[in-house]
Amino acid sequence: MTSAPGFADIQDAARYLKGVAVHTPLLEAHAMGAALGCRLLVKAEVLQRTGSFKFRGAYNRIGRLSAEERARGVVAYSSGNHAQGVAAAATLVGTKSLIVMYSDAAAIKVANTGVLGGEVLFCDRRNENWEEVTARLAAERGLTPVTPCDDAHVIAGQGTVALELAAQARDMGAVPDILVVPCGGGGLTAGCAMAAKALLPKVAVYGVEPAGFDDTARSISAGQRVVNGADAATICDALTVSTPAAMTFAINRKLVDGMLTVSDPDVLAAMKRAFLDLKLVVEPGGAAALAALLAGKLDVRGKTVAVICSGGNVDPAIFARALQVGPGKGE
Amino acid sequence: MTSAPGFADIQDAARYLKGVAVHTPLLEAHAMGAALGCRLLVKAEVLQRTGSFKFRGAYNRIGRLSAEERARGVVAYSSGNHAQGVAAAATLVGTKSLIVMYSDAAAIKVANTGVLGGEVLFCDRRNENWEEVTARLAAERGLTPVTPCDDAHVIAGQGTVALELAAQARDMGAVPDILVVPCGGGGLTAGCAMAAKALLPKVAVYGVEPAGFDDTARSISAGQRVVNGADAATICDALTVSTPAAMTFAINRKLVDGMLTVSDPDVLAAMKRAFLDLKLVVEPGGAAALAALLAGKLDVRGKTVAVICSGGNVDPAIFARALQVGPGKGE
Repeated sequence: MTSAPGFADIQDAARYLKGVAVHTPLLEAHAMGAALGCRLLVKAEVLQRTGSFKFRGAYNRIGRLSAEERARGVVAYSSGNHAQGVAAAATLVGTKSLIVMYSDAAAIKVANTGVLGGEVLFCDRRNENWEEVTARLAAERGLTPVTPCDDAHVIAGQGTVALELAAQARDMGAVPDILVVPCGGGGLTAGCAMAAKALLPKVAVYGVEPAGFDDTARSISAGQRVVNGADAATICDALTVSTPAAMTFAINRKLVDGMLTVSDPDVLAAMKRAFLDLKLVVEPGGAAALAALLAGKLDVRGKTVAVICSGGNVDPAIFARALQVGPGKGE
Repeated sequence: MTSAPGFADIQDAARYLKGVAVHTPLLEAHAMGAALGCRLLVKAEVLQRTGSFKFRGAYNRIGRLSAEERARGVVAYSSGNHAQGVAAAATLVGTKSLIVMYSDAAAIKVANTGVLGGEVLFCDRRNENWEEVTARLAAERGLTPVTPCDDAHVIAGQGTVALELAAQARDMGAVPDILVVPCGGGGLTAGCAMAAKALLPKVAVYGVEPAGFDDTARSISAGQRVVNGADAATICDALTVSTPAAMTFAINRKLVDGMLTVSDPDVLAAMKRAFLDLKLVVEPGGAAALAALLAGKLDVRGKTVAVICSGGNVDPAIFARALQVGPGKGE
């Protein structure tokens, strides 16, 4: 699909993913909720196949390839989570995947992409643009490109996170007032905003970006897509896009109620808190939404708040940094 | 109940815990299963309320106190997981809990017991016996002792882990041939063996103990309860009992098919593997069963294997040690 998805596409994606993707748990975070003065529900999407939500969109796209497309294979660029999602989905449906990654990608993401059956092709962040490399490989080799955001099936797949969340919250007797989502290219935010607004009419949806990568926030303010500074840096490797995708921006500017920004220390403190209280391994980008809440970026007192921990693919050395965060931060 | 529980008591416990305890997910461990040549299912009990299975048994016991008992409160001794389970359960039902802990208990366990509403009383491992201290406090203050193992309601509560597991496996189209469980005092092993043998007639149940704390293994061999050496040491703080409990031993000697032993390096490697592949924070004792599998203590080729990761309350410094395990171990 080249046009934006609708809610029915998310419902369809949920049916398509049944028995293939993990129905990840929605966990009640008692201690953190008490500290924040809210009821806090955490969607533990780190437990998804491949360790992040990206598998949902990738499988919903790649599973629907024609026999001819499947015979040729797919190509994608990624910082590593979409890479693993594409590799796992391609292997499951019996096609090949070629993944373009920057050579500074997280080691765990590169290694797992290979384990999952993907062929990794590195390119140099300073001299090459991965979108261009991917487009060239697609043309040269007849591969189907699987974009991380500008694809209705991908967005619909990511939206199943919130579809599940809404049903799980209902089963727990909770009606979320607020949904907070990590935001990179905007696929998870867009899909989840669509599902949440359809199922929870009063919910406010917030996207969370790392400082220096607040392209969606600034694009919504500007009314058009703007680009991040070339020298921006963040620990949230999964959220380092240069500008919002066209399709996700069109959705997010309409549906998102607000954008928030977090710092590296905010994110590390949230990873430590998830380790202590939730027993979940959350990667920096995956912890961005939780970090915004714990850093007090939103007044949540008296509310029911749902937050997505979207990925857990983090190198041990980075996680060890989070473990060293002192008790004063995030408690 | 002072006599051993039956399967009906486990079913009853499941009804009693519904909506209070977390229905923890059973996760398919694709990569580890492929490496071991088996289908591997992991019961992520680290996601249980209080971070370990102990909440199940504690709530199933404390929730059934008489109004008079509830007015006076409970007392328990624990290395820290039963402590948190008892504290959380007591607070939920509106009674007080006094917890006897050795002063070298894991810091996270002591802190969380307090957060959950328990009053911690330290005793000295070298000069005092915590069972005796607990019995004295119970007598002096009229508190109801909540033992970690010698109680039918506690064992029945722990058994709900395997009750859930059997149903979840069925929903995934899996019939476990083998169930592997961490074993300290034997409550989880006993409850789960009862549930598993009732629901999966062909399953073989293995308990896993740390080296030096193989009291259940040696007691089963000897036909009577034997005691561990006084100078034994292990990283698995949750599994450091001196001898099996009477009630659990009577069950385990009948139902358990075999006992396995793991070393500290086995356990640290399993914690690292759970971090990398499952995105779960597993404490040393909670990782013992997974460690036995990854260390090749059991021939699982071609089998469907279920393993319980029973707790995730680990101090950051210990977890950092696991993160430093090299890639050669457990891969």
